[in-house]
Amino acid sequence: MQEIRLKTDRRTQLVDITKQVQEALGATNGATAALVYVPHTTAGVTINEDADPALAADIEAAMERIVDDNGGWRHSDADGPNAPSHIRASLMSPQILIPLDGGKLALGTWQGIFFCEFDGPRDRKVYVTPLS
Amino acid sequence: MQEIRLKTDRRTQLVDITKQVQEALGATNGATAALVYVPHTTAGVTINEDADPALAADIEAAMERIVDDNGGWRHSDADGPNAPSHIRASLMSPQILIPLDGGKLALGTWQGIFFCEFDGPRDRKVYVTPLS
Amino acid sequence: MQEIRLKTDRRTQLVDITKQVQEALGATNGATAALVYVPHTTAGVTINEDADPALAADIEAAMERIVDDNGGWRHSDADGPNAPSHIRASLMSPQILIPLDGGKLALGTWQGIFFCEFDGPRDRKVYVTPLS
Repeated sequence: MQEIRLKTDRRTQLVDITKQVQEALGATNGATAALVYVPHTTAGVTINEDADPALAADIEAAMERIVDDNGGWRHSDADGPNAPSHIRASLMSPQILIPLDGGKLALGTWQGIFFCEFDGPRDRKVYVTPLS
Repeated sequence: MQEIRLKTDRRTQLVDITKQVQEALGATNGATAALVYVPHTTAGVTINEDADPALAADIEAAMERIVDDNGGWRHSDADGPNAPSHIRASLMSPQILIPLDGGKLALGTWQGIFFCEFDGPRDRKVYVTPLS
Repeated sequence: MQEIRLKTDRRTQLVDITKQVQEALGATNGATAALVYVPHTTAGVTINEDADPALAADIEAAMERIVDDNGGWRHSDADGPNAPSHIRASLMSPQILIPLDGGKLALGTWQGIFFCEFDGPRDRKVYVTPLS
């Protein structure tokens, strides 16, 4: 299990981590898939097009719209009420499993891997695990 | 593949199954990840904070709000119309894959595994499979 | 890694691919799980009931409702604005991991695997990878 570290800048922010995931995999010795896992409860991971920055902004806006900030939520963390951040994390998923082809991520032509921050800015970690 | 059995009490209900998943794994002999799989079509699984019960209630309320019960849905099971239960299950996901570290679930500090009931009360099963 | 090819007919369309996934697995030689992976950014995969076609139609309608086509989105592909297609793909997930039992998909009684088209009609691919 390898660890990627990143720092987010905004409350809701998609960060392209495709390169870091491929680098963390290193020499995979015949592994057939890579697990990308987020060990946080207000962040997630997804795969989408990484060619147009406007799309990441659209996905950020959509997640804020699908779960309304003013929803009468009850949960508070030590640093304040943040239920929408947790709910958005569960909707997006804390993990993605990607097949490997000769040690390389078998991503589609337009696919990139995005860390999804829903309660930033924060220091974050991502675990990368090759599976056989 | 190990099987966990549980009984839910309410129509929409998150149930913390972290301990049962760790116990079902048993001695994992060098496995690198654990697959938690729900073999039902009106239930799912997620990972989120398990310290504050109010958060589970917020997630339950959010899933009921994102998919409206009065949506003019067409599907009925033998026991009545329950399309929203099926749709919520697909939004949440029937599976989560979690990395293992020395045989233990490599969950983040605040993370717990929750079975997500969307059509309870029912008797339910969860499959736990170690992967190498 | 095996490849399934399919052709979709409508903009938003769930296509049952359970049989094709089982066939693509072939002789799995003791594999313990099957990864179903969609290498596209406007399509995904889910598991749900495959007995009633009305349910697939309900899920299609729900995904179109949760992400509004008229959302003031900014992203355009070469062939026009399609941000909602990308956002629906991320909400649904590009992958599902299913446990195997004696080489067979350990699906629940009512479960089927559905390719989820969100920007059709198109020619599409699905990767199927057995994991040990």
